[in-house]
Amino acid sequence: MHSLHNQRVLVIGGSSGIGLAIAAATTDAGASVTIASRNQEKLTAVATKLNGAVHIAVLDTDDNGLLERFFERQVTWDHVVVSAAQTKVGSVRSLSLTDAKAAMESKFWGAYRVARVARINDGGSLTLVSGFLSERPSATAVLQGAINAALEALARGLALEMAPVRVNAVSPGMIETPIWDDLPREQRREMFESTAAKLPVRKIGQPDDIAKAVLFLMTTYATGSTVCMDGGGVIA
Amino acid sequence: MHSLHNQRVLVIGGSSGIGLAIAAATTDAGASVTIASRNQEKLTAVATKLNGAVHIAVLDTDDNGLLERFFERQVTWDHVVVSAAQTKVGSVRSLSLTDAKAAMESKFWGAYRVARVARINDGGSLTLVSGFLSERPSATAVLQGAINAALEALARGLALEMAPVRVNAVSPGMIETPIWDDLPREQRREMFESTAAKLPVRKIGQPDDIAKAVLFLMTTYATGSTVCMDGGGVIA
Amino acid sequence: MHSLHNQRVLVIGGSSGIGLAIAAATTDAGASVTIASRNQEKLTAVATKLNGAVHIAVLDTDDNGLLERFFERQVTWDHVVVSAAQTKVGSVRSLSLTDAKAAMESKFWGAYRVARVARINDGGSLTLVSGFLSERPSATAVLQGAINAALEALARGLALEMAPVRVNAVSPGMIETPIWDDLPREQRREMFESTAAKLPVRKIGQPDDIAKAVLFLMTTYATGSTVCMDGGGVIA
Amino acid sequence: MHSLHNQRVLVIGGSSGIGLAIAAATTDAGASVTIASRNQEKLTAVATKLNGAVHIAVLDTDDNGLLERFFERQVTWDHVVVSAAQTKVGSVRSLSLTDAKAAMESKFWGAYRVARVARINDGGSLTLVSGFLSERPSATAVLQGAINAALEALARGLALEMAPVRVNAVSPGMIETPIWDDLPREQRREMFESTAAKLPVRKIGQPDDIAKAVLFLMTTYATGSTVCMDGGGVIA
Repeated sequence: MHSLHNQRVLVIGGSSGIGLAIAAATTDAGASVTIASRNQEKLTAVATKLNGAVHIAVLDTDDNGLLERFFERQVTWDHVVVSAAQTKVGSVRSLSLTDAKAAMESKFWGAYRVARVARINDGGSLTLVSGFLSERPSATAVLQGAINAALEALARGLALEMAPVRVNAVSPGMIETPIWDDLPREQRREMFESTAAKLPVRKIGQPDDIAKAVLFLMTTYATGSTVCMDGGGVIA
Repeated sequence: MHSLHNQRVLVIGGSSGIGLAIAAATTDAGASVTIASRNQEKLTAVATKLNGAVHIAVLDTDDNGLLERFFERQVTWDHVVVSAAQTKVGSVRSLSLTDAKAAMESKFWGAYRVARVARINDGGSLTLVSGFLSERPSATAVLQGAINAALEALARGLALEMAPVRVNAVSPGMIETPIWDDLPREQRREMFESTAAKLPVRKIGQPDDIAKAVLFLMTTYATGSTVCMDGGGVIA
Repeated sequence: MHSLHNQRVLVIGGSSGIGLAIAAATTDAGASVTIASRNQEKLTAVATKLNGAVHIAVLDTDDNGLLERFFERQVTWDHVVVSAAQTKVGSVRSLSLTDAKAAMESKFWGAYRVARVARINDGGSLTLVSGFLSERPSATAVLQGAINAALEALARGLALEMAPVRVNAVSPGMIETPIWDDLPREQRREMFESTAAKLPVRKIGQPDDIAKAVLFLMTTYATGSTVCMDGGGVIA
Repeated sequence: MHSLHNQRVLVIGGSSGIGLAIAAATTDAGASVTIASRNQEKLTAVATKLNGAVHIAVLDTDDNGLLERFFERQVTWDHVVVSAAQTKVGSVRSLSLTDAKAAMESKFWGAYRVARVARINDGGSLTLVSGFLSERPSATAVLQGAINAALEALARGLALEMAPVRVNAVSPGMIETPIWDDLPREQRREMFESTAAKLPVRKIGQPDDIAKAVLFLMTTYATGSTVCMDGGGVIA
């Protein structure tokens, strides 16, 4: 199934984890894929890993001028994805204001700035990545819930503003990505196992699970919606 | 992509519209598909249309004894879908209690009775079809909103009860199915056009759009969730 | 504060627990209150307990003819409340179909039948009582979640159909009512304590908590909404 | 009813509109009320208007150091309310990034900074004011929807982090406040009338409607919830 044959796809935050899985999945679906992130080295490594099947672009979603010039220069896109940014977690009272602001800056404003200047063809799509804390709060990741809820509401509003471009969000649960690589191996394994045991699906999500959802949203009838990929985390 | 290769799929309400599209899509994905509905004639016609690629079973979801015997006799399933039942609409005050009860009976209790006795393999799935009125009410289809909301909550609860079988709902917006064939051709066209004009996506959904969502849910990390396929109907 | 001075209030299911608390609170607020339930004896006892300050009416929400005649005979109401019905719980697979149907019949259809024939003044209100399982499912009370979700969606739809009469729902968490009196005293105490310990508010709700919410909804700007009174049960 | 007798209430943003109505209502309910805002002159005018029944405090929620010192110096509070901040609206593509950032800064981060350092007694409450765009998006106020959704999720998360302090949000629809005074009188009247005509309740909300909801949330069993006071705006 080459459902994205010849379509131009941009994956922002595509050099690892979920973004990388999205880049691989959309490439497999026949799209002409560009992955963008801050880090030239990582991008080159990914391009190599994907056998040169993707284009790469150095892009910092903090830099609005850079974003504007990038979208002006480029041919319009069929599908744009802004993958999840990594943010520091902690309760409201333990997280410094600086870290809190930085989390909102990279995850919410990064997506907002892209949405503001992206040029997408009619019938194309913009997909944001939020997270299940938007619905199911955690006392130790309160701000993340707020940022994710803001992203999902942003998708709802943009679906009206950018129509007939479709805008949706994918809300992952806990996913086994390099984000967790900072944890000691054993501690990581235990965290994954204890989380899996509590989830209705009994396993941790993989980057491919999210990539499949993003790919699905590119070519569906959905807009203004959030697709929750959490293994039942919201209801557990 | 034959993502359902050799998997046993049962589509209840599969002889027309959305159900038929699901049967076709899952067959294309390599599954061994059985479609079930009340009407032997329609089933035979569908089997012919799909070149004999599907099995058929006469099944009335109103008849619990029949359902029990059916699932007992059959090998366990990988994926079961209960497609949308057609119900009479109208405001609460204009609809007769008899019609109201019949609507709940076929759409909610039909799905409930299937969920109660279906035998599904671990890691498999049960998917229900609700409708966007669950979230966005209409003064002339109040009961449908209640039934759809009940189905989505049923999916949430069953996702816990039947874990690790995954249970989800797909919530369609207005879809161009034979349900509307009773309307005069011209009136139908006008209804579709005026609805499309109000939707962010600017078009009416097709049975294939819902089939794709159902297929997607069969093999994802989602459980207890509702995927809204409404062209932006909820936010319009 | 006599915010309901001279207003006519009907509390259906008002002879114990939450309904009784609503009857007392609306009486205190200056309303002319009628409590209605199936049981003449209980009603008389309540009227005595409230010092004859309430009217009583024998009414069975299962009997549509009786409901129709009641509302036709009576002066129109300012506020009507349908309090929670008691239903048997259990997982979908453990509950008999007969018990499941009876639960839907009393809790959903009871409210539906009232909504269908109640005569309420413009600017007045209809308030339904659902329950927090609508949002936060339980594997051992799946049907209750579905019924509660149906009631909340019913309120949303009726808010459009019955406008400018306002229609809302109150969604209680675990409340200390006579519903639990069947449990042995010690077991009940343990259940309340263990639930309280898990709740953000650290205590079980009281019938008065729900009565206050119902009273609040009678005279507010809200319609089509659900007010959750669960001590944080949904997010716990 | 002096339900807040002797309780210490802080209303941040209390010098006009909704905040002023909250200050008046809580004072009427017997509380010892302090209103805080940036503008000393406005505060003095309000104190005069409320016959000196309230304390005033100059407080800028943008200034975290000031907030920290304020809460350290003050006796702990029973109830803290952060009233709505005024923000510039517009579609994502028409609003400047500077205005967008300022909107998030005052409405979301203002509340966040208060929540971070406020000292509230056990059993007390923190109430945030969001807005119905969180659920029902508008193409010309997309960011406001995102900010409101973030505030509601913040309340959900803080309800866990700050337990047993209760944290909730009130979500107003269109309210007749001085926010709209910039519009020419006739244009304002027309906007109110056309909005009222579309709402199920057929009228624009008043600051008192929101004040009543905030007062209600101070003394209820609710936590982590959002009470929608929108006249049916979400479902219209």
